[in-house]
Amino acid sequence: MSASAADKAAVLVEALPYIRRFAGQVVVVKYGGNALAGASDDDALSLFAQDIVLMRQVGMRPVVVHGGGPQISDLMSRLGKVTEFRNGLRVTDAETVDIARMVLVGMVNPQLVSAVNVHGPLAVGVSGEDAGLIRAVARDPELGFVGDVAAINPGILQGLLDEGFVPIVATIGTDEHGQAYNINADTVAGAIAQALAAEKLVYLTDIEGLRRVVDDPSSLIRQTTPDELDALMADGTIAGGMIPKVESCVAAVRAGVRRAHILDGRIPHVLLLEFFTDEGIGTMVR
Amino acid sequence: MSASAADKAAVLVEALPYIRRFAGQVVVVKYGGNALAGASDDDALSLFAQDIVLMRQVGMRPVVVHGGGPQISDLMSRLGKVTEFRNGLRVTDAETVDIARMVLVGMVNPQLVSAVNVHGPLAVGVSGEDAGLIRAVARDPELGFVGDVAAINPGILQGLLDEGFVPIVATIGTDEHGQAYNINADTVAGAIAQALAAEKLVYLTDIEGLRRVVDDPSSLIRQTTPDELDALMADGTIAGGMIPKVESCVAAVRAGVRRAHILDGRIPHVLLLEFFTDEGIGTMVR
Amino acid sequence: MSASAADKAAVLVEALPYIRRFAGQVVVVKYGGNALAGASDDDALSLFAQDIVLMRQVGMRPVVVHGGGPQISDLMSRLGKVTEFRNGLRVTDAETVDIARMVLVGMVNPQLVSAVNVHGPLAVGVSGEDAGLIRAVARDPELGFVGDVAAINPGILQGLLDEGFVPIVATIGTDEHGQAYNINADTVAGAIAQALAAEKLVYLTDIEGLRRVVDDPSSLIRQTTPDELDALMADGTIAGGMIPKVESCVAAVRAGVRRAHILDGRIPHVLLLEFFTDEGIGTMVR
Amino acid sequence: MSASAADKAAVLVEALPYIRRFAGQVVVVKYGGNALAGASDDDALSLFAQDIVLMRQVGMRPVVVHGGGPQISDLMSRLGKVTEFRNGLRVTDAETVDIARMVLVGMVNPQLVSAVNVHGPLAVGVSGEDAGLIRAVARDPELGFVGDVAAINPGILQGLLDEGFVPIVATIGTDEHGQAYNINADTVAGAIAQALAAEKLVYLTDIEGLRRVVDDPSSLIRQTTPDELDALMADGTIAGGMIPKVESCVAAVRAGVRRAHILDGRIPHVLLLEFFTDEGIGTMVR
Amino acid sequence: MSASAADKAAVLVEALPYIRRFAGQVVVVKYGGNALAGASDDDALSLFAQDIVLMRQVGMRPVVVHGGGPQISDLMSRLGKVTEFRNGLRVTDAETVDIARMVLVGMVNPQLVSAVNVHGPLAVGVSGEDAGLIRAVARDPELGFVGDVAAINPGILQGLLDEGFVPIVATIGTDEHGQAYNINADTVAGAIAQALAAEKLVYLTDIEGLRRVVDDPSSLIRQTTPDELDALMADGTIAGGMIPKVESCVAAVRAGVRRAHILDGRIPHVLLLEFFTDEGIGTMVR
Amino acid sequence: MSASAADKAAVLVEALPYIRRFAGQVVVVKYGGNALAGASDDDALSLFAQDIVLMRQVGMRPVVVHGGGPQISDLMSRLGKVTEFRNGLRVTDAETVDIARMVLVGMVNPQLVSAVNVHGPLAVGVSGEDAGLIRAVARDPELGFVGDVAAINPGILQGLLDEGFVPIVATIGTDEHGQAYNINADTVAGAIAQALAAEKLVYLTDIEGLRRVVDDPSSLIRQTTPDELDALMADGTIAGGMIPKVESCVAAVRAGVRRAHILDGRIPHVLLLEFFTDEGIGTMVR
Repeated sequence: MSASAADKAAVLVEALPYIRRFAGQVVVVKYGGNALAGASDDDALSLFAQDIVLMRQVGMRPVVVHGGGPQISDLMSRLGKVTEFRNGLRVTDAETVDIARMVLVGMVNPQLVSAVNVHGPLAVGVSGEDAGLIRAVARDPELGFVGDVAAINPGILQGLLDEGFVPIVATIGTDEHGQAYNINADTVAGAIAQALAAEKLVYLTDIEGLRRVVDDPSSLIRQTTPDELDALMADGTIAGGMIPKVESCVAAVRAGVRRAHILDGRIPHVLLLEFFTDEGIGTMVR
Repeated sequence: MSASAADKAAVLVEALPYIRRFAGQVVVVKYGGNALAGASDDDALSLFAQDIVLMRQVGMRPVVVHGGGPQISDLMSRLGKVTEFRNGLRVTDAETVDIARMVLVGMVNPQLVSAVNVHGPLAVGVSGEDAGLIRAVARDPELGFVGDVAAINPGILQGLLDEGFVPIVATIGTDEHGQAYNINADTVAGAIAQALAAEKLVYLTDIEGLRRVVDDPSSLIRQTTPDELDALMADGTIAGGMIPKVESCVAAVRAGVRRAHILDGRIPHVLLLEFFTDEGIGTMVR
Repeated sequence: MSASAADKAAVLVEALPYIRRFAGQVVVVKYGGNALAGASDDDALSLFAQDIVLMRQVGMRPVVVHGGGPQISDLMSRLGKVTEFRNGLRVTDAETVDIARMVLVGMVNPQLVSAVNVHGPLAVGVSGEDAGLIRAVARDPELGFVGDVAAINPGILQGLLDEGFVPIVATIGTDEHGQAYNINADTVAGAIAQALAAEKLVYLTDIEGLRRVVDDPSSLIRQTTPDELDALMADGTIAGGMIPKVESCVAAVRAGVRRAHILDGRIPHVLLLEFFTDEGIGTMVR
Repeated sequence: MSASAADKAAVLVEALPYIRRFAGQVVVVKYGGNALAGASDDDALSLFAQDIVLMRQVGMRPVVVHGGGPQISDLMSRLGKVTEFRNGLRVTDAETVDIARMVLVGMVNPQLVSAVNVHGPLAVGVSGEDAGLIRAVARDPELGFVGDVAAINPGILQGLLDEGFVPIVATIGTDEHGQAYNINADTVAGAIAQALAAEKLVYLTDIEGLRRVVDDPSSLIRQTTPDELDALMADGTIAGGMIPKVESCVAAVRAGVRRAHILDGRIPHVLLLEFFTDEGIGTMVR
Repeated sequence: MSASAADKAAVLVEALPYIRRFAGQVVVVKYGGNALAGASDDDALSLFAQDIVLMRQVGMRPVVVHGGGPQISDLMSRLGKVTEFRNGLRVTDAETVDIARMVLVGMVNPQLVSAVNVHGPLAVGVSGEDAGLIRAVARDPELGFVGDVAAINPGILQGLLDEGFVPIVATIGTDEHGQAYNINADTVAGAIAQALAAEKLVYLTDIEGLRRVVDDPSSLIRQTTPDELDALMADGTIAGGMIPKVESCVAAVRAGVRRAHILDGRIPHVLLLEFFTDEGIGTMVR
Repeated sequence: MSASAADKAAVLVEALPYIRRFAGQVVVVKYGGNALAGASDDDALSLFAQDIVLMRQVGMRPVVVHGGGPQISDLMSRLGKVTEFRNGLRVTDAETVDIARMVLVGMVNPQLVSAVNVHGPLAVGVSGEDAGLIRAVARDPELGFVGDVAAINPGILQGLLDEGFVPIVATIGTDEHGQAYNINADTVAGAIAQALAAEKLVYLTDIEGLRRVVDDPSSLIRQTTPDELDALMADGTIAGGMIPKVESCVAAVRAGVRRAHILDGRIPHVLLLEFFTDEGIGTMVR
């Protein structure tokens, strides 16, 4: 027998118990445009879509959440829309939120749906407006239609999961008057993971993981706890764009999500490796 | 007893048997932007949304299909996109179909979803790309990404209807490579009605109904048959933008949809009047 | 558009939310022979039957309870049976209760069943003896077989309602030895409404409603509470034959029936008007 | 071990396979007032009721059908109602059918229901008018409201059987206008057995069984066929009141009822003996 | 009517309520090789099998548990295996437990299965190793593989009962390493009765029942309680091989099994007589 | 990223679609004692058991069938039982079939059950006598109780599979009198695969696969058809102990089993490699 067959058998013996353990479990994956810089974007999107399909095929229930900041900025500039600032913060006026909705719901979301569906008609695009999925509140009246999550009404997601589909969520919410709001996608991913009592919440990023010392690659955090992360945010070790991700991990784990992960989306098939092998990848919170 | 109470009782005695008859029945409604010119657009959209919600509440299963040609043209001009013509026909290149998708899925569709959902979280936006709903084929390679319906895969709609939702369908389809196509919404409405074995297919228009003599209002057709409509199209009485509607009515009724209607969307609550009263409105095909 | 069509639309917009709200709800209606004096009896019975059928068709679950005092007296006199009195109260001996049973179960009940069933085979006559529906206890041994309700065993009614039937209940009960008793139909209606956790309990009478001042038509009570009704019975404002009705309303509302109504059965389609319009009719207790 | 215990064991070994075989099977039993002359009526009714309850308890699905001719005559005479004859046949006018209904539905039926229900709340009285059970047609316009069975709509019986109840059927039918008719109970029993695809149809009579020679007790027919019975009716051996029973047996067996029985209702527990032992009793048709 | 028919009817009237009462109830029957000495073994086994089949056919859910000590000893001697003793107790070494398993699972169990299945394919042999049914612990390391019951995992039995089968249990258990142990069948029967929340636990023995005075046949105990049995074991009245049976009866009744019985298996059809008649047989604990 | 992670990802991408394809599919595996000669028996049995458990855990429905010829011979010689021959063929007398049953049901079967159950309580031993699984007929009266398969009654297997268990089948059958027969396990495996409409039938052997030229290892048959196998048996290329396996493969594939395999049981994890990788192993018939 070839060495290769023995190796394959070893991988299978390693993987099959994980496949059983995660069958039927909900996993919320936040997909960020910057996460896949190690490969051409198309290849990265294609590998990601393949992983999602394979996860679904072996019985997991993935939910994908995405944002699209760069694409929104791009369309705004093409339309000659100038962003207004108030006290140094960007104001999202009615026209801006309409553009954001058009980009997230009408451009980024269909790209992800399409990438998954070349493998089989599994993906369904969902806006936070559909079936009242995301109820929003204004974060600050001065800033216009930038929202926070007031409540998640996950019925539409559960229905789609029960029928075997993969929901792809664009993060537009609405208030009780039907007004749309643009909401941070990292925050939405965490809120949905809580509402669905997910087994896992995963952020695909373009970093290797969290570090205990910012400039020291050897200080990569393999496993951590909500308490340690609170401390690292308090002392400024974790800062900037990582804050919404880390806050959401902390809140989700405290609310009952079993594990949250910050993974390096540049690694091909990083989701399969994390879920179905003994490899330790990125940072795990529990 | 006041006359008013007696009148109310009479309307109820008239309406309740219809409500029973249509409970559980699928009705596909094509909503066109021009249909509601008799009132301010916002009011018209609000009345339409209210009718859809009431229909759902008494047990019908409405599916809404919409296009958005004027809105696409508008965004194209704002983006400075010049339409190319070949042999006098407009060419839909890759950038154009991306803009169409952005407008239909990201702008028009959420407006309808939002209008319905102020009455309750019932509406769910669906693109023809979701779960492989609309499989498209190119109409003519020279024209680029203008598609015809190759097949409807109605699973996602049936699932949403079974869970009590109102699907709102944007008419983007995909071919087997995941390429998006823009498809005529009148045609899609008819194809979906067939695939769902709908009880009724309804086109909301801005005309009173079909006429046997174009310039004679008194020749309004109350009831007709597929055969008569074939003749009226053959002799040119029915022409222009009515063709896709009438062809779809003919095909749907021949394929088993019980009745198709061309209704005047300018009449407030025209759907309720048509479904739940003895009033004869517009043109009915059976 | 004609005014009539607009009026119809308005009635429908008013009615449809009620139809949804009451779908699946149990409504117990006490039908009294005197309730319909404003019209010829046959017409009144026919309108009543039509209302019951329409209610059932749009998903409500009506239960009809009836008595039949005048008809019992009539047969007794035809049979030459003389009523015995003891201390001024009528004695129901064995022969009398057999006659009462024969009239209620064998004459009045089939008339109601038949009136409903000309609209469709929905009505099923039920005696309180069937499946142990009404367990009775003697009210006073001196009076013979006049009973009070000891317990309601509603299984047979729930089974019939689940299968889409309309139970029509004759108010004969039995004790544990199988002895039949004649029981006040107003009381039975209230007890059944409680046992079925009905949404509504309705008494069809031949008065406009309760009054705060007996001789003042302008003192008609639109809405009231159990406490106010207790007071009106205590001070004698409510008296005589209204007592069992009002006591049953009070008890039913206190036990969880959402609303009890005393309606004027002489108004055509009074049930439809009360349930499906904003009209305020008669007296409502909550 | 006592002889008695061995005997008991033998009876059980004999009975248990029958109990299994008949579990879930529908048996239609025609109960006639004259059937039980061998004992005081009350005792006979009580034994009959006990048998029905035991059959139900071990999983059979008995349906009881009854008439009540003598009781109708009795009430008519008490009411001073004189029967009109036309060409020697009794005319059932509107008043007469009302009396018949009152007696069958309001007097005889409740007696049977009550007799069963002292053993447990299993029996439910059903009139042929309930839920459209018996559709009648006039036998002969000259005779008034004497009906034949036009159709059986057994839904109400199946519903009651599925919920574990024992239906007791009074044989009043209605035409499409809601007019009541009196129908021969032997005929109704056979029609219901056919409509329910019963395993058995049983007539309880006051004779030992059918005979091949009228005056020869030794000619008792143990087993026979529809063909032989046709012959015995043709040559007059079977005549009079036995005709509707025998005709119904013949029709039921030909329509798929497995066995029909004419049993001597004077034998205590004749139903248990027939169903659960090897004893041959009365006449069996197959 | 012959006396015999009346007798049969009386037995049926006596038996049918028991049949109803026990329908769906689990009864665990310990079958011992010595229990049936009053008849040739084959006949006794055949009668026992017939009783089990009849019980199942009328809806009871019997579970049979058996041992096989004599048969184990016999095969050991045929194989020339000499039993080792330590401190006067028999040691069950690895070879001995393999022989015990071979005899119980491969010889005695199939004999019982086969005896039942000549009446219909109902019996399924189950070893305590199947699906982890019996988890064992060593009673005393010195004695080798003699086990006590650590836990019962009754899933496999419930599954078989739900599908209408009769499980026949051989009393081999396993520890967490998969090592087999031989376990006392009386003890296993009691533990399974508890785990299944059985209605009854029955020991078939070759004695008439328990006695209050060992040598006095007139002191046979008809009914007793766990407390009295504790006392009789404490004072030595109950001793020897009866101890595991009586201890199991006491524990089972205390744990919720409604009744435990020690019956004389030599009486033909003793199970039918005990379950379906008023006869008092053997000793009942409650 | 390490090469190892990339390799793992590649194996997973290869395996997951197979896992999905085979989820819910029945696979019948014939396990032969000689199949695993490449490793110590204990290790081989343990690896086999692990594969079976992993297959079950990812949703396949494996059924194991085994024989035990060498073990039967061994016990017969230990018991001094001399085999009788008639016309050169071994006679299986009553004592011999009892020994065979004892070995197969009581020794080999529990060993397999136990090996599986150390990984979880999944395995359930089943004899062909249980629930009438294998109905046997004598092959030749002169040879005694050697049987052929007359019919498979797979209810007990389907029940166990539906509840998530792994049936392990010992190949003893019975005739209609309850007489046991010893049946060739290769034949039983094929018959069960047909009766369960299995996806696959697998024979684990101690050869690499079938060859087109007996002595030429390079002539290993990778894929073949029933027709080619018929030819190879006709010309004697396939002979001896392979005949029942090959005949069963041919019959099973012709009867609708999708694929049959003859695999080299000496390769560790050969089942996982065959089912979940692109490796070509042994001989496949389709």
